[in-house]
Amino acid sequence: MTTEQLEQTPRTRLRRSHKRGDFDRETINSILDATSLCHVGYLVDGKPAVTPTIHWREGDHIYWHGSSASRALKNSNGHDVCLTVSLLDGMVLARSAMHHSANYRSVMIYGHGTKVTDVDEKKEKLRTFLEQLFPGRWDMLRPMTDQELKATMILGMPIEEASAKVRTGGPIDDEEDYELPIWAGVLPLVHAMKRPEADPRNLKGLAIPDHVFSFARP
Amino acid sequence: MTTEQLEQTPRTRLRRSHKRGDFDRETINSILDATSLCHVGYLVDGKPAVTPTIHWREGDHIYWHGSSASRALKNSNGHDVCLTVSLLDGMVLARSAMHHSANYRSVMIYGHGTKVTDVDEKKEKLRTFLEQLFPGRWDMLRPMTDQELKATMILGMPIEEASAKVRTGGPIDDEEDYELPIWAGVLPLVHAMKRPEADPRNLKGLAIPDHVFSFARP
Repeated sequence: MTTEQLEQTPRTRLRRSHKRGDFDRETINSILDATSLCHVGYLVDGKPAVTPTIHWREGDHIYWHGSSASRALKNSNGHDVCLTVSLLDGMVLARSAMHHSANYRSVMIYGHGTKVTDVDEKKEKLRTFLEQLFPGRWDMLRPMTDQELKATMILGMPIEEASAKVRTGGPIDDEEDYELPIWAGVLPLVHAMKRPEADPRNLKGLAIPDHVFSFARP
Repeated sequence: MTTEQLEQTPRTRLRRSHKRGDFDRETINSILDATSLCHVGYLVDGKPAVTPTIHWREGDHIYWHGSSASRALKNSNGHDVCLTVSLLDGMVLARSAMHHSANYRSVMIYGHGTKVTDVDEKKEKLRTFLEQLFPGRWDMLRPMTDQELKATMILGMPIEEASAKVRTGGPIDDEEDYELPIWAGVLPLVHAMKRPEADPRNLKGLAIPDHVFSFARP
């Protein structure tokens, strides 16, 4: 690996399975970009809460958003959060229960959520977010209103205290168990798109835009 | 709905989008059973951390497991956790950026993780876990050793302070936007299995067991 390596901290350093840990920025970014679903951990009255939401990445920063009234966002703004992205890539079937496992890619990012306050910056961020998902769509839409921008909170944080963890490949069994007549292997799992479903209230004759088919996540 | 309704608490009650919230045990269970991937939030030095892991349900309890040395498990044992399960079912494309959304099913469970200490109970729980995923597989495997059971920590908690949140269907646009010539609709997303990949070290002539094909999650 020749790309930037993030600094390890006591909470990102892996205690076990060191070979599965990765602090390479390109590896981390590729996992963040592979799905839109993340889980944000924050505190409510000092206790942990985990809310699923949609994230997007711009360079070395990660962003998520929602209603300005959202408790999950308000409790994350200026506070400690952990944003985790993970993809379950397969079930690993071994010759003993112990060595069953899962193939996955995951990233944990620690930091403080910080609200984007400038209205123009908010609009630009939402544009980038939508354009990453559906290139060309933003300019086709009814423009955002000031009221809508006000009702939307965007949080961001640097991808700085972060680590990736990845498992790939088949089962690793105890050496003596390889002689057993037990089928072992991997059941791969994928996310897939199905046929787009048009809104029944679409105007007649509207074709499905290319950006719907080019959607590549998750 | 005629099944048991869980009691709402200040942290499970939904502040907004009340229509998306659900405290029905059958709804909650069906979401927990629809995928094996969950995200557990816990505290490390008073700050939130979120770790992806595999869960299983037995009746009104949820379980997860890992190495006895796992920090995520040790910090969840006897402590406050939030276990969240979510499935991203589709991207919702509206006629304005504001009304773009996602279809999803999610459950948040609050509680204290509690370690299963009895060795026989641990073994029985792991058996149930594997049998739910791959019926009939447990008895085909090399039996678990005492050392393996000792190295495995199982945490559980009651599904009591919990809520589901679900969004389905197409975009809900502002009434005046329905006249715009903008394609709107839903891009459905699914988890899917691919062809099982046999371990190259399998003994010659071993057929793929039926339980691999019958795997139904996620």
